[in-house]
Amino acid sequence: MRVTEIIERKRDGHELTTAEIEFFIQGYARDEIPDYQAAAWLMAVYLRGMSRRETVDLTMAMARSGDILNLKDVLPISVDKHSSGGVGDKTSLVVLPMVAACGVPVAKMSGRGLGFTGGTLDKLESISGYRVALSIAEFKEIVRKHGIVLCGQSSNLAPADGKLYALRDVTATVNSLPLIASSIMSKKIAAGADAIVLDVKVGFGAFMTDIEQAKQLALLMVQIGASVGKRTIAMLSDMNQPLGAAVGNALEVKEAIACLQDGGPRDLREHCLAIAAQMLRLARHPEGDEPEYALAEYMAEAAETLRNGSAFAKFRELVIAQGGDVRQVDDPSLLPQAQLVESIPAPRSGYVEQLNALDVAMAAVELGAGRERKGDPIDHAVGVLVHKKVGEYVTAGEPLFTLHANDSARLARAKARLARTVVYSSTPTLPLPTFYDVVTDAERRS
Amino acid sequence: MRVTEIIERKRDGHELTTAEIEFFIQGYARDEIPDYQAAAWLMAVYLRGMSRRETVDLTMAMARSGDILNLKDVLPISVDKHSSGGVGDKTSLVVLPMVAACGVPVAKMSGRGLGFTGGTLDKLESISGYRVALSIAEFKEIVRKHGIVLCGQSSNLAPADGKLYALRDVTATVNSLPLIASSIMSKKIAAGADAIVLDVKVGFGAFMTDIEQAKQLALLMVQIGASVGKRTIAMLSDMNQPLGAAVGNALEVKEAIACLQDGGPRDLREHCLAIAAQMLRLARHPEGDEPEYALAEYMAEAAETLRNGSAFAKFRELVIAQGGDVRQVDDPSLLPQAQLVESIPAPRSGYVEQLNALDVAMAAVELGAGRERKGDPIDHAVGVLVHKKVGEYVTAGEPLFTLHANDSARLARAKARLARTVVYSSTPTLPLPTFYDVVTDAERRS
Repeated sequence: MRVTEIIERKRDGHELTTAEIEFFIQGYARDEIPDYQAAAWLMAVYLRGMSRRETVDLTMAMARSGDILNLKDVLPISVDKHSSGGVGDKTSLVVLPMVAACGVPVAKMSGRGLGFTGGTLDKLESISGYRVALSIAEFKEIVRKHGIVLCGQSSNLAPADGKLYALRDVTATVNSLPLIASSIMSKKIAAGADAIVLDVKVGFGAFMTDIEQAKQLALLMVQIGASVGKRTIAMLSDMNQPLGAAVGNALEVKEAIACLQDGGPRDLREHCLAIAAQMLRLARHPEGDEPEYALAEYMAEAAETLRNGSAFAKFRELVIAQGGDVRQVDDPSLLPQAQLVESIPAPRSGYVEQLNALDVAMAAVELGAGRERKGDPIDHAVGVLVHKKVGEYVTAGEPLFTLHANDSARLARAKARLARTVVYSSTPTLPLPTFYDVVTDAERRS
Repeated sequence: MRVTEIIERKRDGHELTTAEIEFFIQGYARDEIPDYQAAAWLMAVYLRGMSRRETVDLTMAMARSGDILNLKDVLPISVDKHSSGGVGDKTSLVVLPMVAACGVPVAKMSGRGLGFTGGTLDKLESISGYRVALSIAEFKEIVRKHGIVLCGQSSNLAPADGKLYALRDVTATVNSLPLIASSIMSKKIAAGADAIVLDVKVGFGAFMTDIEQAKQLALLMVQIGASVGKRTIAMLSDMNQPLGAAVGNALEVKEAIACLQDGGPRDLREHCLAIAAQMLRLARHPEGDEPEYALAEYMAEAAETLRNGSAFAKFRELVIAQGGDVRQVDDPSLLPQAQLVESIPAPRSGYVEQLNALDVAMAAVELGAGRERKGDPIDHAVGVLVHKKVGEYVTAGEPLFTLHANDSARLARAKARLARTVVYSSTPTLPLPTFYDVVTDAERRS
């Protein structure tokens, strides 16, 4: 098989065979195919697209390029979740303890933040001592003992995806549905998932800003899952405004703790309960044979773990198991604190019509909460608190945002970023929905 | 300016600005833009195309990536010629001495052969001692003194084109009209051409097998030339069968000498006279103000140099000036000779309907006359002589080909290659035309 012929065939709009995709991906993973050939191929895929069959093959080829975790010895069924990345998204910190507290063990590998999106690992590292790097043996041992584990991704999971993702970033080939879908699904499959709940964000603060495009991506991933025997459900959730109130690592951990203690922002709670209910549904009915009313019951079951403290207890157990300082969980004022705390008052009265999540994220990055390049250090203490959400009324002079900063120049730049973030209306505005849609595999339903 | 944004804009089908193309090409030439970004960009160009303005900008950006020769001090007007590459194409060896013998000095840089196409430099190196590597000072001194010079391309002419060409070869982006046209024209412009005669080959043994596509390429190059003030004429010539009879380096030099001595194959002579006439026309009437009958007169003038021996004398002068052994020119039996010479007889009688130039070329490569990879050594003595051309009648048992070989295994493989090259007809067939069309700049004519 010749590399240039495979590029040529995709360039000319042909459907690649399973063997061609396998050859290309394994060759690239083993450094036998150079970056420049992969780059030309990626651009051809970007412009010519891929059939569903090709996308499934690409997913599995990338999953097989490294280890595929087998969690059968520690989990009866491995239900994973994945968020496509957003602003203020601390969902995993709340959902995993809830699900585990319901008796469904969860073993998840998360990523770091890049650009305007935060990463679960960075949030967890706000807690002193929390170890995100675990060996596979430790990973399994912790979930076996505690029913929950949450750490970084092993470097040998879907290495072809890691290489291709880095290349896409510098060759203007990121925004392609088959490439995005196969990248996400290959990592989940390599991480040993039997069933997957996808949280596909859509809005100003997400990779996808268009609901129809997000729905297409969601459907494609659900179809990939179905094709390879991994039941997959995708939730389309709003990311026009940040999720919850806190954006920034320690600030988000505090908010997650509040939520686990049956408090916190209403939208975050609603969001986490819905995701948890879907995970419980997949775990309890892997064959998709649950009754209609099941989801409401799972939501009630998850809510009960917040009310009775079992979810918070599970979070404490997780932090202790991974070496974190649990005193910071019990007293969040011990988490990293910023030196400069400043409120931004509303310049006028009115109903909040728009609150651009991307602006808030960029302000947080400006403060040091995010990284522009892989490997950049981040400041766990800094970030932004959002006091008013879309649909709420604000009186001139009331605080809109609170900025937590460690540098006055950065603080000034972050303030400038937030100057035009809020759009006001004199007449009442509707709050944004938490979810737009749930996408399941239509073929299974029919 | 950001590299990924330029890739993105071409990916999305936008027209790049002059500044963007300049930035990209100079950055790539200086190794500031990596191969993988150039590869993604090339694929986007391949699939999205380029406007005429972009193609002109790309041509000039590549020409400016290195030195641009100024030949004004040695030539009143520099008329260059370029062949798109074919089989048995020894045109330059005949045309340049003819034009020089007409009093129009010619200074040409040629390339080496790759794949199935032969290179003028390889042919010239059949002559012992012929120096193809000249400094610019030597190049100018020889043309000033002798009115003719023919050597290899200086490495610092259009280096961006050299880099991009190598990259296109391994990323399935060779066959794109704007990329081919800009590549050819950038080299000619960098080599100091004021006017250019393009010999665009079309047929089995050419890069272009489709006349319409070849015409489009020819027109694009003529338009580029017109846009940058270099009058350009393109001739579309047949490459379904080899040009002349000889394919292989020393064999082709012998045939060129025969032609310069007023003999040789009819089609080669006709071809060379037409190209020479166009070069004379551009040199004598750079403003395009020649009368209608001029071309016929130039053809007669060129033919006279063959008849009166002045073209052959000019070729001898060239060989001596560049250090070649002129005894081999005076007695071509002194040129490299193959050890094994074997004829292939016609298996049946009939009119030749087809004689695939590509098969003949591949047989010659099999014998060692060409190279599969850049830098491979070649055997100057070996090759194929073609005794019958399309339209001729052949009697069973008459020799069709003569193979010149230095290795019996290679000889056997070459014979196998030629087994199905000729298609016969029981009824008379038409000979192939030498030229299909002449393409000039329509806007100038109107």
